[in-house]
Amino acid sequence: MDFSPDASFQTDRATLARQLRLVLPAHCLLVDEEDLRPYECDGLTAYRELPLAVCLPENEGQVVDVLRTCHQMGVPVVARGAGTGLSGGAMPHAQGVVLSLARFNKIIRLDPLARLAVVQPGVRNLAVSEAAAPHGLYYAPDPSSQIACTLGGNVAENSGGVHCLKYGLTVHNVLRVRVVSIEGEIFEIGSEAPDAPGYDLLALLIGSEGMLGVVTEVTVKLVPRPELAQVVMASFDDVGKAGAAVASIIAAGIIPAGLEMMDKPATAAVEPYVKAGYDLNAEAILLCESDGTPEEVAEEIARVTEVLKAAGASDLRVSQSEAERLRFWAGRKAAFPAVGRITPDYYCMDGTIPRKRLAEMLAAIADMEKKHGLRCANVFHAGDGNLHPLIMYDAAQPGEWARAEAFGAEILELSVALGGSITGEHGVGIEKINQMCVQYKTPELNAFRRIKAAFDEGGLLNPGKAVPSLHRCAEYGRMHVHHGDLKFPELERF
Amino acid sequence: MDFSPDASFQTDRATLARQLRLVLPAHCLLVDEEDLRPYECDGLTAYRELPLAVCLPENEGQVVDVLRTCHQMGVPVVARGAGTGLSGGAMPHAQGVVLSLARFNKIIRLDPLARLAVVQPGVRNLAVSEAAAPHGLYYAPDPSSQIACTLGGNVAENSGGVHCLKYGLTVHNVLRVRVVSIEGEIFEIGSEAPDAPGYDLLALLIGSEGMLGVVTEVTVKLVPRPELAQVVMASFDDVGKAGAAVASIIAAGIIPAGLEMMDKPATAAVEPYVKAGYDLNAEAILLCESDGTPEEVAEEIARVTEVLKAAGASDLRVSQSEAERLRFWAGRKAAFPAVGRITPDYYCMDGTIPRKRLAEMLAAIADMEKKHGLRCANVFHAGDGNLHPLIMYDAAQPGEWARAEAFGAEILELSVALGGSITGEHGVGIEKINQMCVQYKTPELNAFRRIKAAFDEGGLLNPGKAVPSLHRCAEYGRMHVHHGDLKFPELERF
Repeated sequence: MDFSPDASFQTDRATLARQLRLVLPAHCLLVDEEDLRPYECDGLTAYRELPLAVCLPENEGQVVDVLRTCHQMGVPVVARGAGTGLSGGAMPHAQGVVLSLARFNKIIRLDPLARLAVVQPGVRNLAVSEAAAPHGLYYAPDPSSQIACTLGGNVAENSGGVHCLKYGLTVHNVLRVRVVSIEGEIFEIGSEAPDAPGYDLLALLIGSEGMLGVVTEVTVKLVPRPELAQVVMASFDDVGKAGAAVASIIAAGIIPAGLEMMDKPATAAVEPYVKAGYDLNAEAILLCESDGTPEEVAEEIARVTEVLKAAGASDLRVSQSEAERLRFWAGRKAAFPAVGRITPDYYCMDGTIPRKRLAEMLAAIADMEKKHGLRCANVFHAGDGNLHPLIMYDAAQPGEWARAEAFGAEILELSVALGGSITGEHGVGIEKINQMCVQYKTPELNAFRRIKAAFDEGGLLNPGKAVPSLHRCAEYGRMHVHHGDLKFPELERF
Repeated sequence: MDFSPDASFQTDRATLARQLRLVLPAHCLLVDEEDLRPYECDGLTAYRELPLAVCLPENEGQVVDVLRTCHQMGVPVVARGAGTGLSGGAMPHAQGVVLSLARFNKIIRLDPLARLAVVQPGVRNLAVSEAAAPHGLYYAPDPSSQIACTLGGNVAENSGGVHCLKYGLTVHNVLRVRVVSIEGEIFEIGSEAPDAPGYDLLALLIGSEGMLGVVTEVTVKLVPRPELAQVVMASFDDVGKAGAAVASIIAAGIIPAGLEMMDKPATAAVEPYVKAGYDLNAEAILLCESDGTPEEVAEEIARVTEVLKAAGASDLRVSQSEAERLRFWAGRKAAFPAVGRITPDYYCMDGTIPRKRLAEMLAAIADMEKKHGLRCANVFHAGDGNLHPLIMYDAAQPGEWARAEAFGAEILELSVALGGSITGEHGVGIEKINQMCVQYKTPELNAFRRIKAAFDEGGLLNPGKAVPSLHRCAEYGRMHVHHGDLKFPELERF
């Protein structure tokens, strides 16, 4: 994809640095190329760009001053947490500033009785749960990157995780945020009580990918750590049966704490690396977790087992200890690095489809592997219908990245055609910006653009991300019409 | 409160009727005063206004045409469902049109496998559950008015109900809405898969009180009807103890299907009317429902019972049959009409506070009763910290309504001071518009105003509701300073 800098932003580095030095101490500002290099991309490493400067403010007053300065100068601002995002949401703008919240790393308050924590946006996801652990509490959303990713990034992307089927996405676990606008105005939205009056700005801000404001404080819900958790691991000799089993579990009224699916290429990559004990003869395995009191878990595991048997599971195992449960999950959680061991590069997609279409999607992905000449391992948050196909390629081979990109775009556009969406939890960023033109029609895109203009009239916050311009959609539409290889005739099947 | 019509809207009825007749058949348009009279108020009957006309469109094309006509003529539009709202959100504008969705009463599609229903906005809340019942499913949000209130109104107000502690508010149970803008543009937001990309317009629209668009179709989640539900009824000799018991249940990691509290004046009003079997010696009773499989219910009821005993419950009863469970709830559900029997008029408030402040709030309300010389019965969605104090007054007595209004305002403003909010589920409407100036500072109110302008630049959709003007907040601030009786010195205690 083409992400050449927008010619409408033009500032020279020296002038910008001079202005930023007026509001930031020297150790909070990076302008030398070698210092900027670590910030040139986030977890979507296929796209890179050097910013003009990186700001590392230490307090909210400095955030306000940096934003005011950029606003006055007309300089784009890209906020950044840990840089683990997978959709390029934190990729710098060549004419802009990266605003890192890395030094906002304090847990301000933890109230076990009210079950909440007030944290700065640079606090790591797992650090919240670690701080809450002595009180028997934890923070529920658990993206795979939870060791490294920060709450600010989680808010920006509305992150999920293995347990979000039962415990919700970030938007369901955040009570309040404190935000600085591009004009340097501070506002607080949400409250410690449910359903604050007025428009739901909290939900609007969560998942807005740094396009509406910069978060400087987050109040999160904490939930009690369940007494017990157990996992059922089921093998299937057919991916379609595994997909149908997922739908059957949900149809039986069971909301498991986690419900994950991996296909044979995924388990084959994982098992030698992690030794999780996965059935390598199975075409697909399901991991279904139950948590609660011992009585609740026993009862739910019995019901899940019954449903899985009826759905044609060829083998069933229930974790018999906490160590075994963690081993079952270790394979799932290591799926990305495991696939990384068997291919020079991989591209992780993030479509969401109605659960009942899982089998169809898997069949279509198998066809796409042949068409694009690339292999794909499938790891799904199956209970949510959220797919993470891992497309394997070699960036050193000419043309492979372009084929991987086209393969990924085809998966996303098929997700839309199946009644789903182009992202489950990774955000749109730059990665899926073209697919937004497929997901939405002009009225919806115009509503997004009006919201953006209401908060950031000059379009300075994270320009070029999440919401495509009219021009981009027009161009992408023409590409669909003119280029056979980008037309995705498969979509017309559905 | 003063709600004199905004002088900036000026249309004569005859001209408006002529234009509307061009787009609506005669039986879809009311302009005679006697026909308009039933629409002069909603459930907040203290405020009344006759509109210029009432439109009753029968299809989406007519909704588009009515909105386009009003947009071109600069005429305000107030959308209306069943008119059961309690905050005056559907009160007509004297210079405007009421757009009733009463004829949008079809369930378009019910998909038991995907567990969703696509309904028109005029479908009654309970009708969705009735249609889903043969499949063992139901629609979870259950406002007290569920026999009459419609899905469109539920979306406008983000309605809750007795079971929203466990099953969520409307925003957690709606997947997609189809909306017509004031300019007559149709857009669809949300999808059948979770977490649609782009800004969360779905959450923004839900609870926006008819200020951003008119909903013409709603896709809702259906959930399986639990195998069993049982209620524990606990008596307390002190309201403070009952409040603390609520906090203890939640702190124990239990999320009951419902957790309600009634004080002595409320049970005294209810018992002769419903014969629910309430303990009339108790200062407060709690109703705590558990649902799920028989094993889950037995286990949870045992834990709840233990917590309630430790919290000092003086009496405990568990429903022993479905009939008894329904009888326990019948009293709670009839609390409003029961209070209506013992007082000429009552005023139902809707503040939300952190659960741990329940006892403080009850003590403060007792003081306010003396101060304002009015009685108050308290019915709480205690698990959510959502209060419904019912202030009893007699509209025929000069000055009583003004005292009731001041009493209500004081409760709302104390809710804010205690860290809560001015509405749990009834919306702001006209009722709490002044308290929005207390809940929020200028930056948040400006963010609301910018959102409004992004969707409805001319301010034609439901003007004067939900978001106060800068002028109103300035006036209200001055009232606080100058009039001793409106200054609420009590707030300074907290």
